[in-house]
Amino acid sequence: MKPQLTIIKAGGKLLERNENIENLARYVSGLDGATLVVHGGGSKASEISKQLGFEPKMIDGRRITDAASLDVATMVYAGLYNKRIVSIFQKHNVMTLGMSGADLNSIRARKRTIQSIDYGYVGDIESVNTRAVKMILRLGVTPVFCAITHDNEGQLLNTNADTISTQLATALAPDYSIRLIYCMDRPGVLQDPDDDHSLIHELNHKEYQSLKMDGLISLGMIPKLDNAFYALINGVNEVWITGLTEMTSSKTMTGTRIYE
Amino acid sequence: MKPQLTIIKAGGKLLERNENIENLARYVSGLDGATLVVHGGGSKASEISKQLGFEPKMIDGRRITDAASLDVATMVYAGLYNKRIVSIFQKHNVMTLGMSGADLNSIRARKRTIQSIDYGYVGDIESVNTRAVKMILRLGVTPVFCAITHDNEGQLLNTNADTISTQLATALAPDYSIRLIYCMDRPGVLQDPDDDHSLIHELNHKEYQSLKMDGLISLGMIPKLDNAFYALINGVNEVWITGLTEMTSSKTMTGTRIYE
Repeated sequence: MKPQLTIIKAGGKLLERNENIENLARYVSGLDGATLVVHGGGSKASEISKQLGFEPKMIDGRRITDAASLDVATMVYAGLYNKRIVSIFQKHNVMTLGMSGADLNSIRARKRTIQSIDYGYVGDIESVNTRAVKMILRLGVTPVFCAITHDNEGQLLNTNADTISTQLATALAPDYSIRLIYCMDRPGVLQDPDDDHSLIHELNHKEYQSLKMDGLISLGMIPKLDNAFYALINGVNEVWITGLTEMTSSKTMTGTRIYE
Repeated sequence: MKPQLTIIKAGGKLLERNENIENLARYVSGLDGATLVVHGGGSKASEISKQLGFEPKMIDGRRITDAASLDVATMVYAGLYNKRIVSIFQKHNVMTLGMSGADLNSIRARKRTIQSIDYGYVGDIESVNTRAVKMILRLGVTPVFCAITHDNEGQLLNTNADTISTQLATALAPDYSIRLIYCMDRPGVLQDPDDDHSLIHELNHKEYQSLKMDGLISLGMIPKLDNAFYALINGVNEVWITGLTEMTSSKTMTGTRIYE
């Protein structure tokens, strides 16, 4: 039987409050088996960019990462948020190691090719160094990955945190029985984005396609759900989209369970 | 015989140019034995603080770390500079892991007690988790430490990079034969700070005391030399204060050799 691994993607908005990081730490400290965390930080990066006097560039809701934005992303994701999470996890006796994809050459990416839009220093994942990640997990350490990767040629790259968690999960699926949790500031996938009580408790691919066709899935949720189904069909055992409050307040998992 | 370990403290000013990081990476990739790097970044942190609209506070040449300054230090040291170093080292095939003292609970510090001056979130090192650091070194990995520690109660702290390298060196001295190199943007200890040709090639403690009494050691060099002699009398085999150019341009070590 494969060992158990819980992979939690913690959304950037959650990290704005240390209280949320504390709750996440308490949750992780109570888990059986290995844990791996991936986090974002986009909203804070936008805030710091504005404070530094430049507006973050967006095209079609996607961030354009010029050299200055990459520096801010590296500062906020790999520095501010990553080390805050690590220090709060240590307080809760979770032996933690903060990492970017450059550390231990763990996640190698390629700068996205310019087609219609030049996304700048954005990396699409090429490979996960599963040997390095497994080595850390076997030491009983919880790796905490930020949304920064590299090309192994000296260039750091900005990579979406949902994508990182998905790729780590599928790369580790041959060796671990994986529960992948995309954790947000909402209770899960909602039928009505303005009503937390409209939670969809379970969602399979057919239902997802149908809801999407009817325009009932919010635009921001589509890449997350695409990631979720990609993980499922690539060997990840269990996938959830849920809120931090939902995860940490109940003994059993709640939120939206994604199934094939 | 103890295994060899080279500990390099890379000064913050050096890191302002990627070319210097490339040269350091080439140097490290050619070393025999284990390597550990510690780096600062104070000048860049001051620059970012100013860009964010607040002046860094200094008293008697010492930085005062309020909450906002700590955030900037965490962003610049643990984020921007640490990940730049890691990605450039990986390019040169040095298997690198960027760390703060919070990661793997490797360096635990205590917030400096308020006496005449409140230094803010500045940490004095209490203990080094040598077990964790040795575990990383034994994997053939080069740890790269930034100048951020923690108190193991969830609080990150700003700690001088010279002090971190010294404390890591003395903590690891029972297990490794250590060469400790404080690497700067100057060729070593100078008799005349304005003349790079006035390099002191060797300096023992008696000579140091005498030069200091005569006011011939620049104020900024005194804490570094105090660290250097502390390391020597606490089991570190070899201590150098030198410039990056001096280190990387010659086959043998040059600069100022510190001896008892």
